[in-house]
Amino acid sequence: MRDLCADARLLSLNTATLGPQRSLADAVEGCLRHGIGGISPWRDKIAATGLEAAEKLIRRSGLIVTGVCRGGHFPAADADGRARALADNRRAVDEAATLGAACLVMVVGGLPPGSKDLPGARRQVEDGLAATLEYARTQGVRIAIEPLHPAYAADRACVNTLAQALDICDRLGEGIGVAVDAYHVWWDPDLAAQIARAGKAGRLFAYHVCDWLVPTQDILNDRGMMGDGVIDLRSLRGLMEDAGYDGFCEVEIFSAATWWPRPVDAILATMVARGRSCV
Amino acid sequence: MRDLCADARLLSLNTATLGPQRSLADAVEGCLRHGIGGISPWRDKIAATGLEAAEKLIRRSGLIVTGVCRGGHFPAADADGRARALADNRRAVDEAATLGAACLVMVVGGLPPGSKDLPGARRQVEDGLAATLEYARTQGVRIAIEPLHPAYAADRACVNTLAQALDICDRLGEGIGVAVDAYHVWWDPDLAAQIARAGKAGRLFAYHVCDWLVPTQDILNDRGMMGDGVIDLRSLRGLMEDAGYDGFCEVEIFSAATWWPRPVDAILATMVARGRSCV
Repeated sequence: MRDLCADARLLSLNTATLGPQRSLADAVEGCLRHGIGGISPWRDKIAATGLEAAEKLIRRSGLIVTGVCRGGHFPAADADGRARALADNRRAVDEAATLGAACLVMVVGGLPPGSKDLPGARRQVEDGLAATLEYARTQGVRIAIEPLHPAYAADRACVNTLAQALDICDRLGEGIGVAVDAYHVWWDPDLAAQIARAGKAGRLFAYHVCDWLVPTQDILNDRGMMGDGVIDLRSLRGLMEDAGYDGFCEVEIFSAATWWPRPVDAILATMVARGRSCV
Repeated sequence: MRDLCADARLLSLNTATLGPQRSLADAVEGCLRHGIGGISPWRDKIAATGLEAAEKLIRRSGLIVTGVCRGGHFPAADADGRARALADNRRAVDEAATLGAACLVMVVGGLPPGSKDLPGARRQVEDGLAATLEYARTQGVRIAIEPLHPAYAADRACVNTLAQALDICDRLGEGIGVAVDAYHVWWDPDLAAQIARAGKAGRLFAYHVCDWLVPTQDILNDRGMMGDGVIDLRSLRGLMEDAGYDGFCEVEIFSAATWWPRPVDAILATMVARGRSCV
């Protein structure tokens, strides 16, 4: 395994970690102050800065863009909704291309309002991914499906295991892979085998870390700083690296009560320290 | 599929549905008033009544005991803790035998305090199940592993998919099967295949229903009444019955804010109505 103790260059900051009130500039400057080597912006932060200004800001910083969050949310109740989702995903591809991102991360979406048809939603997701992938290939953008924890199957993403995501990738071909997020996959009895499978197929595009707190107060916004929960992050990184992953460890922490209220430098100093000791 | 519209004889009341403040007698009498055919008591309710009195109460009622909840919680930090868990599971087997229960439901347990060793916890679970099964066979009690939603992997059960549970069953042999709970498995992309596999192997010992609410306010105690959430319960029962399941639909709803505060007859009348229209 790689040694992450020396510096923070292999860490990437997902802008969600700083909370909704911070700008892309806050994130970029924070990374530079703390020696963090990568950044993964959410699209609302890109939009608030402006795409061109965001590109310039990040390019001048020298930070590697480990992903853009996020495309997806394909399932819709009608054809208009599906068309809007596809158009938005093309814009997401364009943004990822402009920023030179390692991948466009896909949170694929859940059930359309009022629907209980999970297999139908999953078919819509695969159709949407196929269409977006076709366009992404022309722009040189890689698509990373992020399987989300089964707790989000209804309202955020109905791709819920690595096996399911990789089956989709196998059907769709080149240019699509997975973003492995420790929070979403740590419980999976099939985890080791599926990470190995993804590595063999060249589909490990991103690795996200945070921690699972016990108890979890809020299933969306109570994720833990690495080391504060129960995930064996060192072993998980071992699985990733054994499978050939040599990219960044992207820190993405949704924490409305614990971390977001803190000063940027307090969050980032802890992130860097825990990157050394726990990731 | 069987027609559940005519009466409620194929419904079973899991005592958790009435909330912690109600007794076993409340549950039994409620079932009789509402024409519900089965009951599945939690062990704290059996203990509060006394095992002998509980047996007499249920036998006189004519209710079928579709399960006893619960054995399990095998992983422990040390050998003493493991031995205590095994002893408690033998008592659970004895109670299930005394009540003539269709199965003893297993909530297998999660990580021991302070541990991050999920594979280790899973090994402890399998060892504990093997030891308990050996005893259960001598008492004529069937063991039903209940795979719990991955959100409970850390603190309640580290068996989180039907596939994982059935792999354990295959290794342990006769007398062990699964309790399929809609809340815990509805999201699983592999659900249809695994229910069919379980049916083929004669391992479908119980079927539990409730619903997944969007949003879910509390991951433990905010489960929905059938029809109030997003689970396609009719299709799920179809999968069960196609696989040969012909037992009860056991209603188990943990609902601290919505249902537990209501009068017993209001809960049961709704349960029976929804049993007809949604299950």
